[in-house]
Amino acid sequence: MPDRILLAHGSGGKLAHRLVTETFVSRLGNPILAQMDDAATFNLSGTVAFTTDSYVVDPIFFPGGDIGKLAVCGTVNDLAMSGARPLYLSLAVIIEEGFSKSDLERIVDSIHQATIEAGMTIVTGDTKVVNQGSADKLYINTAGVGIVPEGVNVSGKNAKPGDKILLSGPIGDHGIAVMSKREGLRFSSKLESDSAPLNDMVERILATGQQVHCLRDPTRGGLATTLNELAQQSHTRIVIEEAAIPVREEVLGACEMLGLDPLYVANEGKLVAVLPASGVDKVLAAMRSSCYGKRAVIIGEVTDGEPGRVVMRTHLGSFRVIDMLTGDILPRIC
Amino acid sequence: MPDRILLAHGSGGKLAHRLVTETFVSRLGNPILAQMDDAATFNLSGTVAFTTDSYVVDPIFFPGGDIGKLAVCGTVNDLAMSGARPLYLSLAVIIEEGFSKSDLERIVDSIHQATIEAGMTIVTGDTKVVNQGSADKLYINTAGVGIVPEGVNVSGKNAKPGDKILLSGPIGDHGIAVMSKREGLRFSSKLESDSAPLNDMVERILATGQQVHCLRDPTRGGLATTLNELAQQSHTRIVIEEAAIPVREEVLGACEMLGLDPLYVANEGKLVAVLPASGVDKVLAAMRSSCYGKRAVIIGEVTDGEPGRVVMRTHLGSFRVIDMLTGDILPRIC
Repeated sequence: MPDRILLAHGSGGKLAHRLVTETFVSRLGNPILAQMDDAATFNLSGTVAFTTDSYVVDPIFFPGGDIGKLAVCGTVNDLAMSGARPLYLSLAVIIEEGFSKSDLERIVDSIHQATIEAGMTIVTGDTKVVNQGSADKLYINTAGVGIVPEGVNVSGKNAKPGDKILLSGPIGDHGIAVMSKREGLRFSSKLESDSAPLNDMVERILATGQQVHCLRDPTRGGLATTLNELAQQSHTRIVIEEAAIPVREEVLGACEMLGLDPLYVANEGKLVAVLPASGVDKVLAAMRSSCYGKRAVIIGEVTDGEPGRVVMRTHLGSFRVIDMLTGDILPRIC
Repeated sequence: MPDRILLAHGSGGKLAHRLVTETFVSRLGNPILAQMDDAATFNLSGTVAFTTDSYVVDPIFFPGGDIGKLAVCGTVNDLAMSGARPLYLSLAVIIEEGFSKSDLERIVDSIHQATIEAGMTIVTGDTKVVNQGSADKLYINTAGVGIVPEGVNVSGKNAKPGDKILLSGPIGDHGIAVMSKREGLRFSSKLESDSAPLNDMVERILATGQQVHCLRDPTRGGLATTLNELAQQSHTRIVIEEAAIPVREEVLGACEMLGLDPLYVANEGKLVAVLPASGVDKVLAAMRSSCYGKRAVIIGEVTDGEPGRVVMRTHLGSFRVIDMLTGDILPRIC
């Protein structure tokens, strides 16, 4: 099986070295990674941001992306949401024995593509192979390191009554794109995952010089869960307007069919920004100037009273409490 | 199944938040982790070391340790082997649906214990749950960040002809301990994994002020593979003495029974140091002053000629070429 990954590819021995050199280093190559020591080294100074995520999405290839693109963008975005400029990435893969080597190469190419767009470098990595049936094809972990520019202080706990809540575009694309591929659903129009690196949009937001209190990407658990986190961390109440929240027709349709609420469906290329009303015009313009924020809108505001609660004013004008996701409507979505 | 992990524990929703708070943050708690933002932030300045490893060891509990201890020590050691002082750790788990919550708690306790000994802090993390049959119980990824003290320059490429090669103690304990548990082997005496954080030993070595060219922990692929990596990276020849290499009786016995060569069996608490002959006495004393280096010895030297080759002078006085590991004698050993 020359095109298959063998247990020996994870042994640390000859085959493992060849896999690392030929499949990973040759594609992702840069001077730091090429040193091949136990740890990568580089110079840094300031407030460092550090984050990690594992990716277990099923299927690994889906409309608009794959597990590799997701693994880069997800960690880039976690860094960007803390106001950091993403710099260095680690890449660790757990591969199921028998996995296709050409699929692995395709994924590493996609990782490379995403790091180029995000302006990041993969500097250290690890490869493990587990026996057939002990993983589902391929799992990826990335950890990322970035630098928070001086004066930037973005945190979920910073939301304040009076702040406006901005959303960078329509919700639910990623979750529904993955789900539809998994379940074999077909749409009349093309629906793709929104998986994208958002660090450029964050740079544009911060470059306005306006105060920004919170940034967060509504991934697993969707917009509803993210807003609940922000309300809880900052001990505020959040009110959103149903009419203001953009959702694509196809996503709405699929959600109705599957019995899902788009508020809980995962996004991988959207962000929520919370900031004082005075800065909204400039920040909204900055978001819309980024290719991933053209449909950015104001969706609500932060208020006093009922700390930790999120409510939505519906199309009918009534108020509905928006809880955190309970249960798991979409397993293995990222 | 109140004691079982459910898919919903990985959803990003309510159950996921409870798992993170009650199982992870309460045990590993520190002010940085408790912020619960998308990325952890802290101040750093200087040469930063950054590394990652995934852990897929089978079984997850074995004599002398478990997957949690391994996941901390392995990454601590990768940082230490680049001369860095380990500081911050990320922790990402992929859990198989149905996994025992109390086993998870036991592993997180063990992780906590290991971070205390190593003087590290877990500052960021991630939890994913995959459906039953899509993982084997639990996989862990850790990434680590440390600072390389000024003036320290340790790398596999720095080995020079004339350097001596030191080994911190007997080889093969980890591999054989895991293997014996997996295969149900019994020994007359107790054999345990050597899994341990080696950063204290490295600090002692560096505190001697002697020049140290390379440090490396011979994990997957064993001592033989590590020496081959060093010989290849530094374009030198390495000669070791069979008689000088410490191996426990039980390990030798098990290796004979299983048809293994201890030179290729994984270690998780040993290090190889390469340095000029002039520094050997002081560095050896420093290694022996650490609780994990009491049996440290000189095992060979770096020479000219045949770059990339490792040879061993056997008990009989003949020379045997020691190649890198080929195939995989011990899958899922770490």
